[in-house]
Formats: sequence, structure tokens, C-alpha cells
Amino acid sequence: MGIEYDVLTRLRDHGSLSRAQLATGLDVPRPRLLGVVDRLIEAGRVVEAGPAASRGGRRSTLVELDPRIRFAAVDLGVSSVDVEITDGRLMPVASAEEPSDIRLGPEVVLRRVTETLSKLRAQGGVDRLDALGIGLPGPVSFREGVSVSPPIMPGWDRFPVRDLLAKEVGCPVVVDNDVNVMVLGEHHSGVAQRTPDLLFVKIGSGIGCGVQVGGEIYRGADGSAGDIGHIQIEDDGPVCACGNRGCLEAYFGGVALVRDAEAAARAGESPALAERLAATGRLTSRDIADCAAAGDVICTNLIRQGGRRVGRVLTGLVSFMNPSMIVIGGGLAELGPTLLAEIRAVIYARSLPLATGNLSIVRSELGSRAGVVGAAVLASELAYGRFT
Amino acid sequence: MGIEYDVLTRLRDHGSLSRAQLATGLDVPRPRLLGVVDRLIEAGRVVEAGPAASRGGRRSTLVELDPRIRFAAVDLGVSSVDVEITDGRLMPVASAEEPSDIRLGPEVVLRRVTETLSKLRAQGGVDRLDALGIGLPGPVSFREGVSVSPPIMPGWDRFPVRDLLAKEVGCPVVVDNDVNVMVLGEHHSGVAQRTPDLLFVKIGSGIGCGVQVGGEIYRGADGSAGDIGHIQIEDDGPVCACGNRGCLEAYFGGVALVRDAEAAARAGESPALAERLAATGRLTSRDIADCAAAGDVICTNLIRQGGRRVGRVLTGLVSFMNPSMIVIGGGLAELGPTLLAEIRAVIYARSLPLATGNLSIVRSELGSRAGVVGAAVLASELAYGRFT
Repeated sequence: MGIEYDVLTRLRDHGSLSRAQLATGLDVPRPRLLGVVDRLIEAGRVVEAGPAASRGGRRSTLVELDPRIRFAAVDLGVSSVDVEITDGRLMPVASAEEPSDIRLGPEVVLRRVTETLSKLRAQGGVDRLDALGIGLPGPVSFREGVSVSPPIMPGWDRFPVRDLLAKEVGCPVVVDNDVNVMVLGEHHSGVAQRTPDLLFVKIGSGIGCGVQVGGEIYRGADGSAGDIGHIQIEDDGPVCACGNRGCLEAYFGGVALVRDAEAAARAGESPALAERLAATGRLTSRDIADCAAAGDVICTNLIRQGGRRVGRVLTGLVSFMNPSMIVIGGGLAELGPTLLAEIRAVIYARSLPLATGNLSIVRSELGSRAGVVGAAVLASELAYGRFT
Repeated sequence: MGIEYDVLTRLRDHGSLSRAQLATGLDVPRPRLLGVVDRLIEAGRVVEAGPAASRGGRRSTLVELDPRIRFAAVDLGVSSVDVEITDGRLMPVASAEEPSDIRLGPEVVLRRVTETLSKLRAQGGVDRLDALGIGLPGPVSFREGVSVSPPIMPGWDRFPVRDLLAKEVGCPVVVDNDVNVMVLGEHHSGVAQRTPDLLFVKIGSGIGCGVQVGGEIYRGADGSAGDIGHIQIEDDGPVCACGNRGCLEAYFGGVALVRDAEAAARAGESPALAERLAATGRLTSRDIADCAAAGDVICTNLIRQGGRRVGRVLTGLVSFMNPSMIVIGGGLAELGPTLLAEIRAVIYARSLPLATGNLSIVRSELGSRAGVVGAAVLASELAYGRFT
């Protein structure tokens, strides 16, 4: 990282600035700054943007990011692909969401990604792509750009995602775990903008957690940091997809919630759920949220129990990590206030006061867009020189 | 931190070096390095150390740390004070251990510290002190140099430890939590020398944990990171000193172990323990270790149960943090191999293989010296410019 990175990310986050503002803000001698800006203009990354508003005296000229800069952002979910094209300031210029199935394997799913991207580029006349960022729903070796031992993704283990996409799309590519990408998004333009130490808990089909320490994503020794879905909460609990017993995910998350709701429907405990199950043959977490909102006690209790279990695991992590913010995101976080209320109640009741005095527990501000926003941030960080 | 810090810590960790070796090792232009070394010699921090071994050609001159540099290192325990004076390379030149009682409050305990230090200085003719590092058995505000809400330390809350010691001793002082200090020691000259991401678990009277991420101590938003002794492992467990129920410390650690052993002795379950209790009126963890080593099943089981509970908490933290090393230290870690074996068994059996593939779980190499070694490292970091 050098001055070029600092200039480019400032223009990304603040828009057009004068050279004087850049030199002052970055605490760089003006002659050096001028040289860097000249080089960036030559390289097609920065352009002149007209005179600054007059404050008397000689008018200074503004510079801004080259308006032709384009990033591709991909949020690869278990059952969908979100693709977005943004400009250099990460403003969306085109986007699409396509159904997909991660279990079809990397060739099929990544072809869906490149096809969707081609379609968007053709529609918008986008011939330039500066970088592509993508989040995968499983552990990733960030350095190598491959997914590693993903439990729910047959065929993906060590598949060269980065290199294949770079070849197909023709631009530099950066790959990360989906939750890490969400942390980036929420930190850049969501609820956690001034928060260096935070946990982002994604409650979707499963449960994962992104960890940011001192403003940087923390990945752990093998890239598996934040894998809280398989923390054991009961010795003799139900068998989990990972093979162990009593993991958090075996109790809660979209898959477990639907399983429990369908069992309750079949057992005749919830007429509302039984009616929906009979109508469609299967339930979704949306059904459970709707029934809970309509006053179904079984559904409300399923959500509350899940929140308590998530809260219990997070309470231990609060003692251990003492973060200043926990962001709750993922599909289930959007089901209503009950889940967040339960998580908060457990953490504030059970943690030591010292560790929660300044702790806020909030819902993701970006919601379902956190992944694609973060993927655009990741792409821009690569293009602007963060990893070189 | 600048080149001065780099030069001084290199001379601390490698001994005498030539200017050429320093310039090459630090990747600094030679003229700039020569200027820095000259300034350090003038300031009485570095001295010439004679010619380097000849390799043909012109002989270069070695430099080394000024042999008059002295650091004071203090490890403040619940019931003892360890004080050591070291040279600039952290080699001990004098040391003392005194009984103490943290509950007597900061004035009494810190007077014990300064008196012990004065005695050592008088004995060794130490008139110069460059810095003092001290570890306290409770949460610390590192920035302010005060202890914060320490649960077992009446009178210590927000007491100005740093400023009082600096005034009494007449040198810069740096204060940290005892477990953070142990991590520093073990990372500098113990088992974790090349390990950037690690947990140091201290099992003493209570249980605490030091967290190092990317080679840096991680303190958390309020300085309470690593407080794992109060992670709840059972909803309806025994009441803990913190007021909650079922905390790890309510089950294990020196205090809980002695409580359970005395109960077993009184209940007639362990003749060996009963005999020792009758002889002295109280048991220590040493008694339990001795009886376990002599084949007493009750004692062995108490240690095994404790190890399983510690392992269970650590299993969750391994999933969350994915560290490359866990170091087990503190007084109880020295009781024999059973405790470590149980902790290892639980973590390796219950964690996901991806998170433990490269994880080593080892006993502290520095043992009871970890605190005082780390305090000397901390003092040298302050004196050499780490925190400026």
C-alpha cells in the first residue's frame, strides 16, 4: 500500500477533491502528491473534474476517479447468485440476481456467474472491468483464491475459483468467504463504519461469523476463523451435517428452523404452519416469520429458542473478544425483531458488565445487499493496490 | 516506531552486530543507519563492541546495547510479587520473590514492590533504570495504566498504578494484564517464538487467556478480551465469585479444585486427601497433584474433569479464532501431564478438522517465569520506542 492507494480510496469514499485537499488529508508533501496524481491520470484511473468552488484567490482544480472504472461484485449464495457492476466509487450501474444451486459444482455455478456478468456488460455497454470481487459460502484460502474443505459444496474443494474467473472475465479477481465480504460491506457503508473491532453474525441456511480486528478481517491460521455454526452447545444434541453432535447449526439457522417447523406442522401443533405445508408441500423461513407475526405461538417460540442459542454462543465470544459491535445479518435476521431481542437479552444478561458496557448489538443495515456491497469493496481494494 | 526501535530490538534479540549487518537486516540505507547508531551511542543506549571476526578485507566494528541498561520486571500475583532486574538484552541480573496479598490494596502491595526493587538495586549497585514493566492479575486499561473493575482486587479499581510507580521508581512504567504479559514472554523467548496467532491460557487460582493476533496483543474494546474464566458452561451450575452461575471458574482453577478436594476429603472419599487435610488444616493444588501422582483416583478425576471443561470452552474458541497454537500456563499447568492430555483430547475430538490441522496445544516453556520474562519484554518495548 502506498500513496496511490490512499489517493484512490479517498476519491472512492469522498468523491472529487482538490489536490490541496488530498495533500492535506493524506499528510503528504504537495510535490510528491502532484506526481502521484499525474501518474494516476496517465494510467486512466483519475481525471480532472473542473474548478473547485471559489473561496477567493486562485481557483484550485478538482480531481476524481475516472468515470470509466468498473468493478464486478459477486455474492455467491447456496441457492442464488447476485452480480453487480459498479463504478469506481462503488455506485451500482447494473445488477442481476439469478437462482442457482451451489451443489451443482464450480463449473456450472461459475458459468452462471460469467454468463450473468456478460449479460449485464452487454446491456450496459461495459467494456472495461478493473477488478472482480466474489464471496463464497464456505472457507476460503484468501491467498490462493480457492475454496477449502467446504462442507456443503461438493466439487469445490481447492477449485481454482480466482484463476478460472480471471481467465474467463479478463480482469484481476479476489475471492473471500461470504461472511468476511459482508463485514467489509457493513464496515464500508453500513452500520459499522467507524467500528474497528466487530463481529458480523450471518444467520442464513447455516450460521457463520466474520471477525474484524483493528479494521482488518481476521482469518485465522487456516482461514476458518469465525466458524461458529459448529460450536457445540449440547453434548448429546442432534446430529449436525458436519458429523458432530449438538452444534449450534444443528439447532438453528434456516435449515434447522424449517425442519422444526415442518415437524410441528405434521404433529398438529401449529394449524397455521400445517395449512401452509399442505398448500405448498414445504415450508420456508418466510412462512415461519409470517405465522409468528400473525401470532402463532409455536413459530414465535422456535425463533426465540434459536435466538437464545445464538446468544449463548455469542456470550462466550463477547467474554473472549470484547468487541464493540455485533452485527446480526443474513436472511433470518430480516424475519423480525424477536430474534434480535432474544440475542440481546441473553448477551446483556450473561456477560460481565465490563465487556458489554460499550457493546452495541444491531441488525445489518445493508441486509441482503451486504454481500454484494462488500464484494465491490473487495474488488476496489484489489484494484487500488491494497494487496500489493 | 522507527529505525531506532528496530536497531535496539535487534541488538536485544541478537546481541552484538556490525553496522553492515544492521543495515542489511533492516533494509535501511547505510548512511541513514550510521546516523541512527551515532545518535544511539550519544544517548547512552548503544556502545562500540570491538572488531567483528575477520572475513578478509577491512574489519567492521560491532555495536551492542549499552551494558548499563537496566529494566525492572514485576509479576504481581494474587499471593506473591516477583521482581527481576535485567540488562538491555533481558538477561536477569537480580531477582526476588516475596509473599504478598493482592487484597491488601494497591498502596500496601505497590509499596512491597518498590521496597523489593530498592533492595535489589542496593544489592546489585543498580543506579540506572530505563523502564519498568508490570503485570496485574485483572483487567487493565493499557492506555491509562490503571487497573479496571478487578473482581478480586478491592481498592484497585482505577488506581493509578503506572503514575504512582513512575513517581516512586523514577523511570517510565508500563502496566498490563498478567496474562497479556505472559503471552509477550512466551512469544519472545518461550515456546511461541515464531507464532503470530496464539492463545495463552493461564490456569492459576482462576482462569484467564491472553490473545495474540498477527504478533500483537489483542485487548478488545474495553481491555477485557480473553476473560474466559466467566464463560458459562452450565445454565444451573454453581454460583461464581462474579455473581453469575456455571462459569468455567466456578468449576475449575485453583480455588475450585481445592474446594472440591476438601469436600472429597471431608466426605471420606479420598483417604490420602483426608490425611493431608487433617495434618495441615487446608489443602493446596500441590496436594491434589501429589495424591494424583500417587494413584489417588478422586484427585485424578478432579483434574480430568477440569481439563475436560477447559477443553470444552477452548473448543468453541478454536472454531471462532482458528489459532495456530494454544499455550497452557499458570500454576495448575505444572501439576502434571493429565490436565494437558484432557484438554488436548477434547479439542482434537470436538473441533472441525480444518481448524485443528495445524493447531499445536503445548505447555508453557517458561512456566512460572512467563510473567516476569514478559514484564521485562514489555519494559524494553517501552524503553526502545514501541509505544511512541
